[in-house]
Amino acid sequence: MSEPKSDPKKLFAALFEPKRIALIGASADPAKTTSRPQRFLRKHRFTGEILPVNPSRSEILGEMAYKDLASIPGEIDHAYILLNGAAAVAALAECAKRGVKVASILAGGFADAGAAGASLQDDLARVVAETGIRLVGPNSIGTVSTNPPVALTANAAFAVDKLRSGTWALVSQSGSLIGAMLSRADARGIGFSRLISVGNEVDLAVGEIADLLVDDPRTDAILLFMETLRDGERLARAARRAHAAGKPVIAYKLGRSSIGQELAKSHTGAIAGSDATFDAFCRRHGIARVSMFESLIDVPALLVDRPPATGKRVAVATTTGGGAAMVVDNMAMAGLDIAGPPQALVDWLKPLGIAAGEGKLVDLTLAGAKPEIVAGTIERLLADDGNDAVIFVVGSSAQFNPELAVEPLLRFARTPKPFAVSLTPTAEKSLALLTASGVPAFRHPESCSEAMALCLLRPVPQPLPAVAEPSRASLDALEAGRVNGFDERRAADLFAALGVPMAKSLAIPDAKRVVAAVAEVGAPVVLKILSADIAHKTEAGGVALGLMDGQSAAVAAREIERRVKAHSPDATLDGFLIQKMERGLAEVILGFRRDPLVGPTITVGLGGVLAEIYKDASTRLAPVDAAEAREMIGEVKGLATVRGYRNLPKGDVAALARTIAAFSTLAHKEFADVSEAEINPLLVKHDGEGVVAVDGLVVLR
Amino acid sequence: MSEPKSDPKKLFAALFEPKRIALIGASADPAKTTSRPQRFLRKHRFTGEILPVNPSRSEILGEMAYKDLASIPGEIDHAYILLNGAAAVAALAECAKRGVKVASILAGGFADAGAAGASLQDDLARVVAETGIRLVGPNSIGTVSTNPPVALTANAAFAVDKLRSGTWALVSQSGSLIGAMLSRADARGIGFSRLISVGNEVDLAVGEIADLLVDDPRTDAILLFMETLRDGERLARAARRAHAAGKPVIAYKLGRSSIGQELAKSHTGAIAGSDATFDAFCRRHGIARVSMFESLIDVPALLVDRPPATGKRVAVATTTGGGAAMVVDNMAMAGLDIAGPPQALVDWLKPLGIAAGEGKLVDLTLAGAKPEIVAGTIERLLADDGNDAVIFVVGSSAQFNPELAVEPLLRFARTPKPFAVSLTPTAEKSLALLTASGVPAFRHPESCSEAMALCLLRPVPQPLPAVAEPSRASLDALEAGRVNGFDERRAADLFAALGVPMAKSLAIPDAKRVVAAVAEVGAPVVLKILSADIAHKTEAGGVALGLMDGQSAAVAAREIERRVKAHSPDATLDGFLIQKMERGLAEVILGFRRDPLVGPTITVGLGGVLAEIYKDASTRLAPVDAAEAREMIGEVKGLATVRGYRNLPKGDVAALARTIAAFSTLAHKEFADVSEAEINPLLVKHDGEGVVAVDGLVVLR
Repeated sequence: MSEPKSDPKKLFAALFEPKRIALIGASADPAKTTSRPQRFLRKHRFTGEILPVNPSRSEILGEMAYKDLASIPGEIDHAYILLNGAAAVAALAECAKRGVKVASILAGGFADAGAAGASLQDDLARVVAETGIRLVGPNSIGTVSTNPPVALTANAAFAVDKLRSGTWALVSQSGSLIGAMLSRADARGIGFSRLISVGNEVDLAVGEIADLLVDDPRTDAILLFMETLRDGERLARAARRAHAAGKPVIAYKLGRSSIGQELAKSHTGAIAGSDATFDAFCRRHGIARVSMFESLIDVPALLVDRPPATGKRVAVATTTGGGAAMVVDNMAMAGLDIAGPPQALVDWLKPLGIAAGEGKLVDLTLAGAKPEIVAGTIERLLADDGNDAVIFVVGSSAQFNPELAVEPLLRFARTPKPFAVSLTPTAEKSLALLTASGVPAFRHPESCSEAMALCLLRPVPQPLPAVAEPSRASLDALEAGRVNGFDERRAADLFAALGVPMAKSLAIPDAKRVVAAVAEVGAPVVLKILSADIAHKTEAGGVALGLMDGQSAAVAAREIERRVKAHSPDATLDGFLIQKMERGLAEVILGFRRDPLVGPTITVGLGGVLAEIYKDASTRLAPVDAAEAREMIGEVKGLATVRGYRNLPKGDVAALARTIAAFSTLAHKEFADVSEAEINPLLVKHDGEGVVAVDGLVVLR
Repeated sequence: MSEPKSDPKKLFAALFEPKRIALIGASADPAKTTSRPQRFLRKHRFTGEILPVNPSRSEILGEMAYKDLASIPGEIDHAYILLNGAAAVAALAECAKRGVKVASILAGGFADAGAAGASLQDDLARVVAETGIRLVGPNSIGTVSTNPPVALTANAAFAVDKLRSGTWALVSQSGSLIGAMLSRADARGIGFSRLISVGNEVDLAVGEIADLLVDDPRTDAILLFMETLRDGERLARAARRAHAAGKPVIAYKLGRSSIGQELAKSHTGAIAGSDATFDAFCRRHGIARVSMFESLIDVPALLVDRPPATGKRVAVATTTGGGAAMVVDNMAMAGLDIAGPPQALVDWLKPLGIAAGEGKLVDLTLAGAKPEIVAGTIERLLADDGNDAVIFVVGSSAQFNPELAVEPLLRFARTPKPFAVSLTPTAEKSLALLTASGVPAFRHPESCSEAMALCLLRPVPQPLPAVAEPSRASLDALEAGRVNGFDERRAADLFAALGVPMAKSLAIPDAKRVVAAVAEVGAPVVLKILSADIAHKTEAGGVALGLMDGQSAAVAAREIERRVKAHSPDATLDGFLIQKMERGLAEVILGFRRDPLVGPTITVGLGGVLAEIYKDASTRLAPVDAAEAREMIGEVKGLATVRGYRNLPKGDVAALARTIAAFSTLAHKEFADVSEAEINPLLVKHDGEGVVAVDGLVVLR
């Protein structure tokens, strides 16, 4: 993975804790957005120097103003450029010349606004590349730290009187969401350590910034609001380092629907990848992806400083049966199991008149909210090896007697085993008390369940599989395809060289050699036209199946020739492929693709029209090793048919896993110009009899 | 559908607007739950008479107390029984004797608490059946009206100082949820007309109560919190009448997961039905089912007084691109389409410096929150025929300048076209202002999307298909199965009589007649053993496929006999079924089942192991007509293969629909003892060639 291009410590300081800040294009008119950074810096007690730059004024909002950047004496840590378009580009060049360490640009109207803007953005990229200045934006609403306070932002949400500090950092590709998150967290009594709007990410992007935050002693969780992914490698590195440091990385990403993907594209000028590949990315690198917006605030409390879970069994106690049932229902849908109470708890509750143990819930309704019973129950659940986490679901008491309802729960803050509280009524005071004490507490049964599922099921970074150096044979096969085009035979040669078992076949230049070829391959055979010009052989009439001897194959070859010539008169025909006809228990499709956002991916799906309809496939970052390939096989529902289902014969799942792993080595950089490859079908035979690929294609960039 | 057993007007008055209320077992000790009804009634200004009954006191909390019910002079509208167990049963009998119109029982410990409780509950049911008294509960935390105020409840949540009145009624099978809903709604500035906890529903259940509320002039939406369904027919009737009256019925139901279903069962002593059948119930009768708890409060505003939607295209304008993108992403996942702005709006915005029309969102960020631009935009979107609803997504302005941000939106309250506001930051004041003015407003992008999806896609009650009277032949076939047991042949006779095309077949008493039978049916044939004692013929070795002539069939028959006798030595063998071997484009499974909650259902699924793995099926209440059967076919993803997919040949979908409808007539009451029936497989042939059923079974109750 690539190394940072600036000294990270210095970059971090200039970005988040600058001492001297230039505001280029600052305004004295409070009605203007460009006056905000100066006002917000002061309002939230920035202790460094503010250096407004405005050619037409000598003073702005009580601060001495400079006519240009050059007139400012001394070092400048961070310059916020508040000019538009070409003026912003010029200012960035000025900053670079002046030795400013980091510049941010507020204005949009670059790649987010069509072709003209994209060209302006290219100008920015050129300045960055040529000078080495680091840039946030354009289209960045600002960068904020709470301690020491640096409210370098034009976001109206920072008009709040008090900026609450905290230990979670927020990195957002949407500027307006910074404000929304600030207000939502504040309403919950939660503050942030840093908030940064990365805008169009010409230079500094989510990954590098997250990477900086891993080393920030004031940050213990990194929250991401994402519309796209521009520096996947850096984000991967950040997520892995964050995991090692015990800091969760939690992402909300738009584009789960195809309409949402379109929107992200048009809104940010970014390329949209598929949602499944982003999931694969999160899984590989240990990023917790949330599906509800509010979860970005709800989830971190349950993840910070938490080693990987031991299992997925959650014990639930409650003073509201209906409320707890909602939490249980949602948790079960999220894939968690519910653990019943241990005998020790059943025995302890019995003399108190509470019958536990019949169902899985421990319902204390009859005990009201008696603090000692609630505390004793939670204590015994936490001590039980039969569960991996505990949730207490509170009813009306949380609303009317917050101190009383919450008091017995506070002692369970920061327990080694995950413990969370779900509030059934609106009970803002209880929520605030719990949050302030460090007890993860939730407003909605859905968000409580999502948080607990992420806590217990969230991925940890997977070791990156070593990719063996490509064999000479595979490089030769690639070269042959580059030179002559990848027809089916050359694709098969490449796959075979990678280690994919291919159906026995023979290429012949013309129909005259069919009989001899059938004798060599062995009937029954399949006959296919060979042509790099014909992508869909079947539709061109270029395939004949189930030929039982040389004679009928010869007849078929002549018919194929006639049909193909009629269908594609301009195609160059390179002869025929005679292939041993194979049968399997199941047909699998393997797909390799270089995704524009996350890089090489591998997809395993069931072949056939039904699987296509059901979109039944598993996607991972490539390469995968055989162990991960096995996990993928386990995720393709339809492959249950070969994993051992009812009376069906088992397929050779081990060989399938090995083959997936071998195919995924296309991720090696030597194959960088292979943008897509597919094997369809790969036949899975009886256990012990292997797999065999029958057809495939390779697409070069 | 069944008719109400009491005069609904009188029942309604006694239940929700009683003038004289007896509190049996009332306590003067404010620490006791049994003191609450009296305190809450007074606190919330009940203007009628409270009649506490307590043998050991002459006065309770300032009210004259009676030693028993008999001592109370005059009529009693409603008695709340605050005693436990057998004492509660006795009190109910007293109430009946005394002519009390409605009694409610607070105590749990009946069917919700195992066998002993169930027997006590039977005693309650007996009193109800014998005397005709109407009962709420047991396990009812109370019945509340806000206007006129009647807080007849023991729910601690009613300790609030002021009971907000409103026009939505809540009927809940969970008592504690009443309190949670009260607090959640109150925090949003929303009140209820009525709230009732129905408990174990020995007598009055959700359906009958909802039916009463349809005629309540103070109620315009009926919200249900459900754990089970005990009076489906009554609820169906209520939902249909509510729809006709323009009052939406909105349900949250537990048990979407199987663990949740288990829990509902153990928690309420109720039978659990499948979740898909409850969905089918809601769809048939026009109930809007929500998946998020908070949606029960969020959704009604968008549904009240709203005729069925014209389409599913939503236009979105915003001052926060990121916030709007979340709403769009969630709406798209919920099945809605996004409509771009009309040219008139694009043209109007252009001179204002706002470029709309490139993407589908109308992003007014550059215009800030200028009221006239916001209002002008919404106006033009509402006037556009290119969309069916409009959403405005508000950013930080909602938080800092609620009056300003909300002012231009208020005029769009109660527009004929649905209009909603989604708030991206926490902005409680804006939310309250919008809610008070009648503009549906949402805190979360997820709930806004769920509400809009329900608004535009919610089901309207479907006409109940007329079920033709069963033919003589079908009744005879049923009777034959009743008398002799339903082997495959008798099942086939019944299905054929219903109108299901069955594969040509002939039953013969022994192997000697095989050759002649094959000649009559026509090869190729399938040979199957006939025995009502053998459920799984294939596993018993009782089936031979693809027999090409009489000779091989005769051999196969002897082998079958030998295998079956070895496998099931005690089974009575009734000979063989010789069946024409049929082929089709697709195999379908039809299932008929009498669901314990919703009654007769019909399920259509794809046959084969893959479809089983994918759980690809559509369920409806039975009977269905051919039109609804077509909808079902459209919902089975795998049936795309016969609906016209790629190059695949089309199947006879019309014949399939007719056959589904014919099979679903098993719902007729004449077949009431058929608890389950299945056809597997039903082969779908080429378009125009029909369908044919190959195998089936009937299970009698």
